[in-house]
Amino acid sequence: MALRARALYDFRSENPGEISLREHEVLSLCSEQDIEGWLEGVNSRGDRGLFPASYVQVIRAPAAEPPPSARYANLPAGGFEPLPPPAAFKPAAQQPPQGSDDDWDDDWDDSSTVADEPGALGSSYPDYEAAGGGASGRYRLSTRSELSLGSRGGGSHPAGHPHAPGGGGGAKSSATVSRNLNRFSTFVKSGGEAFVLGEASGFVKDGDKLCVVLGPRGPEWQENPYPFQCSIEDPTKQTKFKGMKSYIAYKLVPSHTGQQVHRRYKHFDWLYGRLAEKFPVISVPHLPEKQATGRFEEDFISKRRKGLAWWMDHMCSHPVLAQCDAFQHFLTCPSTDEKAWKQGKRKAEKDEMVGANFFLTISVPTGPGASLDLQEVESQVDGFKAFTKKMDESALQLNHTANEFARKQVTGFKKEYQKVGHSFKCLSQAFELDQQAFSAGLNQAIAFTAEAYDAIGDLFADQPRQDLDPVMDLLALYQGHLANFPDIIHVQKGALTKVKESKRHVEEGKMELQKAEGIQERCNIISFATLAEINHFHKIRVRDFKSQMQHFLQQQILFFQKVTQKLEEALHKYDSV
Amino acid sequence: MALRARALYDFRSENPGEISLREHEVLSLCSEQDIEGWLEGVNSRGDRGLFPASYVQVIRAPAAEPPPSARYANLPAGGFEPLPPPAAFKPAAQQPPQGSDDDWDDDWDDSSTVADEPGALGSSYPDYEAAGGGASGRYRLSTRSELSLGSRGGGSHPAGHPHAPGGGGGAKSSATVSRNLNRFSTFVKSGGEAFVLGEASGFVKDGDKLCVVLGPRGPEWQENPYPFQCSIEDPTKQTKFKGMKSYIAYKLVPSHTGQQVHRRYKHFDWLYGRLAEKFPVISVPHLPEKQATGRFEEDFISKRRKGLAWWMDHMCSHPVLAQCDAFQHFLTCPSTDEKAWKQGKRKAEKDEMVGANFFLTISVPTGPGASLDLQEVESQVDGFKAFTKKMDESALQLNHTANEFARKQVTGFKKEYQKVGHSFKCLSQAFELDQQAFSAGLNQAIAFTAEAYDAIGDLFADQPRQDLDPVMDLLALYQGHLANFPDIIHVQKGALTKVKESKRHVEEGKMELQKAEGIQERCNIISFATLAEINHFHKIRVRDFKSQMQHFLQQQILFFQKVTQKLEEALHKYDSV
Repeated sequence: MALRARALYDFRSENPGEISLREHEVLSLCSEQDIEGWLEGVNSRGDRGLFPASYVQVIRAPAAEPPPSARYANLPAGGFEPLPPPAAFKPAAQQPPQGSDDDWDDDWDDSSTVADEPGALGSSYPDYEAAGGGASGRYRLSTRSELSLGSRGGGSHPAGHPHAPGGGGGAKSSATVSRNLNRFSTFVKSGGEAFVLGEASGFVKDGDKLCVVLGPRGPEWQENPYPFQCSIEDPTKQTKFKGMKSYIAYKLVPSHTGQQVHRRYKHFDWLYGRLAEKFPVISVPHLPEKQATGRFEEDFISKRRKGLAWWMDHMCSHPVLAQCDAFQHFLTCPSTDEKAWKQGKRKAEKDEMVGANFFLTISVPTGPGASLDLQEVESQVDGFKAFTKKMDESALQLNHTANEFARKQVTGFKKEYQKVGHSFKCLSQAFELDQQAFSAGLNQAIAFTAEAYDAIGDLFADQPRQDLDPVMDLLALYQGHLANFPDIIHVQKGALTKVKESKRHVEEGKMELQKAEGIQERCNIISFATLAEINHFHKIRVRDFKSQMQHFLQQQILFFQKVTQKLEEALHKYDSV
Repeated sequence: MALRARALYDFRSENPGEISLREHEVLSLCSEQDIEGWLEGVNSRGDRGLFPASYVQVIRAPAAEPPPSARYANLPAGGFEPLPPPAAFKPAAQQPPQGSDDDWDDDWDDSSTVADEPGALGSSYPDYEAAGGGASGRYRLSTRSELSLGSRGGGSHPAGHPHAPGGGGGAKSSATVSRNLNRFSTFVKSGGEAFVLGEASGFVKDGDKLCVVLGPRGPEWQENPYPFQCSIEDPTKQTKFKGMKSYIAYKLVPSHTGQQVHRRYKHFDWLYGRLAEKFPVISVPHLPEKQATGRFEEDFISKRRKGLAWWMDHMCSHPVLAQCDAFQHFLTCPSTDEKAWKQGKRKAEKDEMVGANFFLTISVPTGPGASLDLQEVESQVDGFKAFTKKMDESALQLNHTANEFARKQVTGFKKEYQKVGHSFKCLSQAFELDQQAFSAGLNQAIAFTAEAYDAIGDLFADQPRQDLDPVMDLLALYQGHLANFPDIIHVQKGALTKVKESKRHVEEGKMELQKAEGIQERCNIISFATLAEINHFHKIRVRDFKSQMQHFLQQQILFFQKVTQKLEEALHKYDSV
């Protein structure tokens, strides 16, 4: 039986090799196996090509349907209401860390990678519980990337949408304070539930300790004592296998080592996967979107480099992410030392302090009055939820406006100014028919004015690259963060619910006070972490939007000054007429 | 039988009271009598209202057709090939000086005006030959305004189009050098033919003398020894008959008297008619267009005032027009002295030095070498003809572009910038949900930026009034001049043809040498006048376009500086964030 899929949303092909989809349309699939999040198939108009896997739902005949493979094991049975895809941003990083990446093949330690990465293969989960030391309550299955993989494969909603499903019924089990029946709840899968219920345990090394401190604005991640930045420059096309395989490598220079390393997009992607798995209440910045075709085009490479630079800035700015081992390995391991790279990679992949155990690494302020008022926390988190929703809406709108404005400048504005230039040119040509000496100066001045307007048209067309593009890059990054927060909020809410439940159970005599206090204490830790993350978000948001608005306005001012200068040059031509 | 007319061109109604026409559409006319160049009728869609008389041709059933009234007596039998109407400019001044004008009634000395003005009534021509002194060769019938009247009434072509018909066959009679058989030739009607053939005679007073001198660029009108300007300000609505009748009066202050007078559009219109009749080879500037509705709207009044100011500037700049009696009467006669006004008006209307006699008033350089090389003149005039054609095309295009550019700024540009402003506003409102003190500064700065973009949108919308409107005003004035030149060139060409004919006749022994020399001498006068007029045109053209381009660029620079300033103000708001 031919594989088929149904389009969940409209998709407009934008590059050669892609095909367009119409919502509800049924397609034939060439393979169920996606390549970097893209599937190949034939649409109802007979066009064959690529389309995003997240835009379709594979159709399985009920009788012939195989038992769900482990890859899709986390899928909710019913699926969520499909939501419209985000207009401008498809966070690529929520794609699974699969073998192949930006050059469509895996020419770099793939024999190990594919086997090592959880969730990357259609096999069953590796034996993490054994690897993790046998502690019964340990959860390493739940990662954000697996969630996305599941959602995407099942077509429940496009990856990266801020209104993530999160299993609405989360922690509403009314019975005892025990495991949530909904195994697909983010709260469960993140390890948050296990941690709150006291089922997580592990040996936390000093180096793993993450401190939340009380700052003037409430809980904050302790600042990185050794702050650094990292530049991303010189994307270079490199080849392997005698030129058979090509890829782009970026030069990274972290300021704290000064040693340059070269990394490919696939390395970024691998790192993202590790971090997203490890940190349940931290918003790991999304990577710039993937692109199946045109990967070697200059525009795309330059855009990706800028996107990666933004990403890097947010990584370095985050006290927890910046100091995490996997990131440091990524920044510092010499590109030439393949062995060291693999070692660090394996170490990161075997990190035990992920999910539920991550919470064990968090230290919060102690002592009298250091415990958070949970009602107050709930109200703050609700406020933040409303904030993210509004910010997401306005970011979407601003992105749309900026996009349209850029398009208008490149097309309409340019055309209008150049039409004025052309008309002046015609006028000067007509005037040249009068060959008297006394009118030659005017004719030249008008011809110069014509050129000035032509140049102004070009200035308009070039300008969006200087000012609007960076605004859109920033918005894309923030839309990624905003897409992360529903899950983070969900974990915190799940913990709060457990506290309420436990209090009720104590009142009903069904639970020992001590156990309930333990739950409250651990919820306190999650709340501290969540509020620290929220505060961090606001801090970088204000920093980023301030600097981006300044940059935008500076560029706009420069632009209008250039226009004015062109006009002034033209005006002076009339002085000698 | 109901009066009917056929639309010659599309007409789009732009004001209340007007109706739209489609080319070839048949309309019912309420009356054949136009009001200021507008007819009232019902179109094929049943809409009743006004439309320009020049856009339709009255349909006359062959049997029922009355003999052409005297008003249409000058109409060519066949009519000319209809030309498309000029896109942007309908020179109103070619309308007949009818009784009613810009207030739809005639509340000012109409008992005399209507009777006094030739061609204004549907009656026969007044007995000018008698009044003119009985010289057999005198022509007072032919005036530009009558030509237009005929053309308009007969629907041959819209008034004011630069490619005026001019009776292509002009002076091609192959028989003897005698009267042209085509009585509708401009050459004939202007009096040019009669003058060249030596049939014009009259007593030229010293004050009537017009000198053409040889300047560095060839023949030039002798400069006005007492140059002056005249301001047109303060259009004021005035009423008569206890408020029953309203009109707009403009305050004129000529610099050579310093005495203000008040004139209405109808006075300008009367003056225009006199001048167009009097000066066959001078391009009398056209008045700004008439408008049937909305005459009291501020925008229209302000536009008309500017148009009249341009017109006045060209009148004062012309050595011949500036000094002519009718114009001086118009400028200096006290508005309150109705008797003096009427006297001057009658005097102007009885002026004998019009048409053929006008040429008698021209003095040209004499002596050895002062006679023009007629071949050289022909080549110069041909060159000018090509020039006017090209300039007309480019003026039309520039006018169209300017119009479109203005429209885009008022609509699209404004909208785009205000959409950006709106999106910034939404963003600042979203950010305000985060009520922390440290983000308040950013929110305010973004809100301020939003307002700046909103204001920039308004600046774009307001700008065309400052820079493009004056360009279009200037173009309209020049399109009027360009529409005048075909007739002027035609007169000169007719004279040249007569010279060639006479030479041939002398060779064939059919004409006395002396007579031929007389023809050549008079043709020399016409050529001097034509070249002087062409030179004057170039002189004011270079002056006007230089100053208008400078004004345009200065305004554009001011505009972009204002935009830059807005943005700088916005940028500074981020300093304290």
